[in-house]
Amino acid sequence: MNERQRARRPGGRSARVGAEVHQAVTDLISERGYGNFTVGEVAARAGVADSSIYRRWGSLANLLTDVALTRLNARSPMPDTGSLAGDLRTYAANVAREITGPDGLAVVRLAVALSSMGQQGVQARDDLLAERTRQLQSMLDRARERGEHAPDAFAVLDHIMAPMYIRVLLGIGPLTPEYVDGLVDRLL
Amino acid sequence: MNERQRARRPGGRSARVGAEVHQAVTDLISERGYGNFTVGEVAARAGVADSSIYRRWGSLANLLTDVALTRLNARSPMPDTGSLAGDLRTYAANVAREITGPDGLAVVRLAVALSSMGQQGVQARDDLLAERTRQLQSMLDRARERGEHAPDAFAVLDHIMAPMYIRVLLGIGPLTPEYVDGLVDRLL
Repeated sequence: MNERQRARRPGGRSARVGAEVHQAVTDLISERGYGNFTVGEVAARAGVADSSIYRRWGSLANLLTDVALTRLNARSPMPDTGSLAGDLRTYAANVAREITGPDGLAVVRLAVALSSMGQQGVQARDDLLAERTRQLQSMLDRARERGEHAPDAFAVLDHIMAPMYIRVLLGIGPLTPEYVDGLVDRLL
Repeated sequence: MNERQRARRPGGRSARVGAEVHQAVTDLISERGYGNFTVGEVAARAGVADSSIYRRWGSLANLLTDVALTRLNARSPMPDTGSLAGDLRTYAANVAREITGPDGLAVVRLAVALSSMGQQGVQARDDLLAERTRQLQSMLDRARERGEHAPDAFAVLDHIMAPMYIRVLLGIGPLTPEYVDGLVDRLL
């Protein structure tokens, strides 16, 4: 077991440190915005050494992405309703609720910030996208295994997620249930 | 003729001041990013009084939006090719070229910044959207007058613009001509 695996075991001190670091990042984003704080400031806020953060996450970009992914997975999990239409409608409704909430532009802000953070930022952004795409693909694969005709994951991104994000970004609203369901129906 | 109309007459000192202020804004965005400079700093850079900026633009949010709209209108004008498919393909290709360029996320960054600037920011963002939507609607109205069946402007935003923007934001690329034309064909 190497250092990184040991640091990630569930429970105990490692879990407490993880939670404290995540909370420090969430607070600093809220107070200053993405890109306006350092690993040292996160460490000081969380009461841990800088080296603990670098050992566990490798970079500020990875840490920001881990915090965002944890939040996304908790608040917008991929549903499993038994039908593709049900899954996509539930997922789209969850995303619509999240992105019209108080910190709705969080993912957009994060993506913009990471794209200004050089190669580490780009890699972290790619990792985040890959993980969420993998989860979405599992949902679509389940539909195919049931014999349903499923779009590919990028079509879901292009024609369900993207319109909702751009409407929130440009202040075109509200995202009514009829509008959100309409995006799903149009794709299917 | 009121003060504001006089300030906006073409040519002469007013045009020079307008160009200098626009250049100062462009430089400050490039150096510091949106939201990290004041009207006073723009004025100092452009060699004009703060009051000149407030009289002409009313707020920093309006000034940022005017600069963005001037750039959009110059670089992504609404085409008039004689057919709706031609217009939409040309427009989509222009947008794809712009948003994959060196400052491709400019409009996204501006929209994020304006949404953090209170009521003036939201109003400026709405004005920018309204102006570009008005231009797009004119293009769609010309198609209808020729007897073509045209989608509404928000459908163009949802299914042509939004997917391209989200792909650039998330680093999913490139936006090939086949992909861009495919978005247009799918909508039509």
